[in-house]
Amino acid sequence: MSATFHAEWAWRGGEGVVADVRFTVRDGRIADVTEGAPAQPGDEPIRGVVLPGLVNAHSHAFHRALRGRTHAGTGDFWTWREQMYGVANRLDPDSYRELATCTFAEMALAGITGVGEFHYVHHPAGGGRYADPNEMGRSIVAAGAAAGVRIALLDVAYLHASLSSPDPLPEQRRFSDGTIDAWLERVDLLGAGGDGWTVGLAPHSVRAVHPAELTQVARHRGGRVVHLHVSEQPAENEACLAATGLTPTGVLAEAGLLGRHLTAVHATHVTAADVALLGGCGVCMCPTTERDLADGIGPARDMAAAGTVLSLGSDSHATIDLFEEARAVEHDERLATGRRGLHRPADLLAAATVGGAASLGWGRSGDAGIREGALADFIAVSLDGVRMAGFDPAHGAAFLVHAAAAGDVRDTWMDGRCVVRDGRHLAVPDVAARLGSAIRAVGTL
Amino acid sequence: MSATFHAEWAWRGGEGVVADVRFTVRDGRIADVTEGAPAQPGDEPIRGVVLPGLVNAHSHAFHRALRGRTHAGTGDFWTWREQMYGVANRLDPDSYRELATCTFAEMALAGITGVGEFHYVHHPAGGGRYADPNEMGRSIVAAGAAAGVRIALLDVAYLHASLSSPDPLPEQRRFSDGTIDAWLERVDLLGAGGDGWTVGLAPHSVRAVHPAELTQVARHRGGRVVHLHVSEQPAENEACLAATGLTPTGVLAEAGLLGRHLTAVHATHVTAADVALLGGCGVCMCPTTERDLADGIGPARDMAAAGTVLSLGSDSHATIDLFEEARAVEHDERLATGRRGLHRPADLLAAATVGGAASLGWGRSGDAGIREGALADFIAVSLDGVRMAGFDPAHGAAFLVHAAAAGDVRDTWMDGRCVVRDGRHLAVPDVAARLGSAIRAVGTL
Repeated sequence: MSATFHAEWAWRGGEGVVADVRFTVRDGRIADVTEGAPAQPGDEPIRGVVLPGLVNAHSHAFHRALRGRTHAGTGDFWTWREQMYGVANRLDPDSYRELATCTFAEMALAGITGVGEFHYVHHPAGGGRYADPNEMGRSIVAAGAAAGVRIALLDVAYLHASLSSPDPLPEQRRFSDGTIDAWLERVDLLGAGGDGWTVGLAPHSVRAVHPAELTQVARHRGGRVVHLHVSEQPAENEACLAATGLTPTGVLAEAGLLGRHLTAVHATHVTAADVALLGGCGVCMCPTTERDLADGIGPARDMAAAGTVLSLGSDSHATIDLFEEARAVEHDERLATGRRGLHRPADLLAAATVGGAASLGWGRSGDAGIREGALADFIAVSLDGVRMAGFDPAHGAAFLVHAAAAGDVRDTWMDGRCVVRDGRHLAVPDVAARLGSAIRAVGTL
Repeated sequence: MSATFHAEWAWRGGEGVVADVRFTVRDGRIADVTEGAPAQPGDEPIRGVVLPGLVNAHSHAFHRALRGRTHAGTGDFWTWREQMYGVANRLDPDSYRELATCTFAEMALAGITGVGEFHYVHHPAGGGRYADPNEMGRSIVAAGAAAGVRIALLDVAYLHASLSSPDPLPEQRRFSDGTIDAWLERVDLLGAGGDGWTVGLAPHSVRAVHPAELTQVARHRGGRVVHLHVSEQPAENEACLAATGLTPTGVLAEAGLLGRHLTAVHATHVTAADVALLGGCGVCMCPTTERDLADGIGPARDMAAAGTVLSLGSDSHATIDLFEEARAVEHDERLATGRRGLHRPADLLAAATVGGAASLGWGRSGDAGIREGALADFIAVSLDGVRMAGFDPAHGAAFLVHAAAAGDVRDTWMDGRCVVRDGRHLAVPDVAARLGSAIRAVGTL
């Protein structure tokens, strides 16, 4: 089974986009890419700009229920977390699957073909275990399949409330497997994943998984990627220094967790020494969430210069728009430095696509743009809307990063199959109405 | 002539929105507003949330041609300005009118019903004057009429390159009337405006109009509003202090320009003393432009607390989305302070609507929401899209500010006439294609 596509324009990794690009999809991969080729009979024509699918490397799907409801109040990150826990403790496998299906469908409409779901709501709210202890995780996998989005199930270990308290808080209890061994045992039951999904290890943070346990994660990793929250908040750094004498990144280094398999999420409040250590790792920035939660502005420029592979996540889903995340990395650092042009648009677009795929174990970070051998996950951005009017192919990456919005995505293909056509989700015909019902079903604040 | 509308939901100035609001439009004003009223035969039903039209209080329409083309380079505000001047010097009355028509039409699609056009491209690029010395300004007025957008023509005085140089730069020459008297004489020819447009005075900045000239502006103001750029860049403050011993806001105070008629645009790098002085004035923030130009984060919270009336502008039009501008005020200050909830969503929505109208001389800042006596400029935001799914009327203002995007605007009325219906501009049927042609016609970089 193969199909050949003819793209009006395609992004091949550079600052511009290339006209008339033909490519074939075979066995779930892109093959035989030709630039400047006229369309042949039987080709499927694609209008607009074709680029690899956007990868949302850090998602908590159920946070979508909080959109619009947690913005008016005062307080800080920790105040917001209380509100979020309220929803977490009302989820069951059915409501979680339905809410995640609709959230992932919203992502597909926004051109997101792959998601790293940082999944921590594991066990029944009332205590005990589900008959299948991975029932909640399997809800996420089923939701990805229903929404046509590739899933990396980043299964979270959440064992402690803080570095100084052995137990989780009561409202964190359903996140916890009790011990690191019990968690690893449960995650191992998932194997390597299956059709359209993979498994990664996600020790939540140095708060929730202590140093000796992180060492165990490193030893037991196998080929799995590792994601965790790092230095999102100054208070987290202070507590870590007080308890261990090290920064969170320093703790990861001691635990043997650093490397290309590791993605530090946020990395907002990192030291110069941390930046050097993270040069051999990935960092997932979530700037619209970091704005919303008043986290601060991470040193993306320095990290990229140190060799870090950047990726992007919509995290709490206050917004689901990876173009906005990409430009926010540049914009927020401009605000912090007074300088423009800290990141080339092509590099930001790489972070939104292949950087995310690399962080989830799906590809290599260097292979940006539509190219042979890549997963057949790709999208078309329309040039017919007002935002993109005046499009200049020589500045194609800049237009995509700085002018496009999620609503400009017209078509989405995952694993070579069309998921979204002309802005409509083929498998979830009315995403918005169904999402509204799913949110009402889990209740709100 | 009157028409009665029945809104599914309407924003009346508070944090929530109100169901079933009937109102009548009579003589260009809203009248007879009733909450919780069933629709009557003959009412025009409006689905979604009705709110006052968004007001874009600071626009340079022709900057729209720069979108996507000025983002990849390095440098700072001043580098960007050179690129912008290149386009400014290729405009003529026809190309300016056409580009502005399409840009204003993009605004109408985004729910913007009124614009403060900070207009400084006055004279022929080759020198001399047009037969009507206000021909370029009349192009802006005509563009507003064609696009169905109310215009405050903020006619700019641009006399000097800096506080230490008497002349403008060669590339600024077409902006200059030579003397403050010649500028005032030309602007007086415009009178008070006309149907759908008004006139304001816009001494560009303390760089371009010197202290004694600002005093003349204050004396000659009449009933007109005054807008100018204030403390957008640290270099501007330093030059002002060196030349006058005062901050730019201090210069305005000495000139007798402070008051409710004054809007300071940006006010990014202001002192505590400036903030106190601006408490009796308006400030227009343009956060997506301030991000793009690496300007910095202004003290919006302190200014609002001091009594300043905040308004919003899309300025350079890297983005035209006043919902994004509104949330950016809050988000960027969260990044600077580490605190959430600095501005109530209803206050941000007021800045995006009635705050802008007040700054342009069209209404009083306290009259937020759909209410009797207001101009019949109003819009409907759809609740059918994925971004707004899960809408909660009790948090209506928060949903509008923190979740809505320009693309969620479905219908726009200006002066009681429908301009945009179901996302289509009634007078400019294909905004995007025509805008693309207008941009190509003025050439780019």
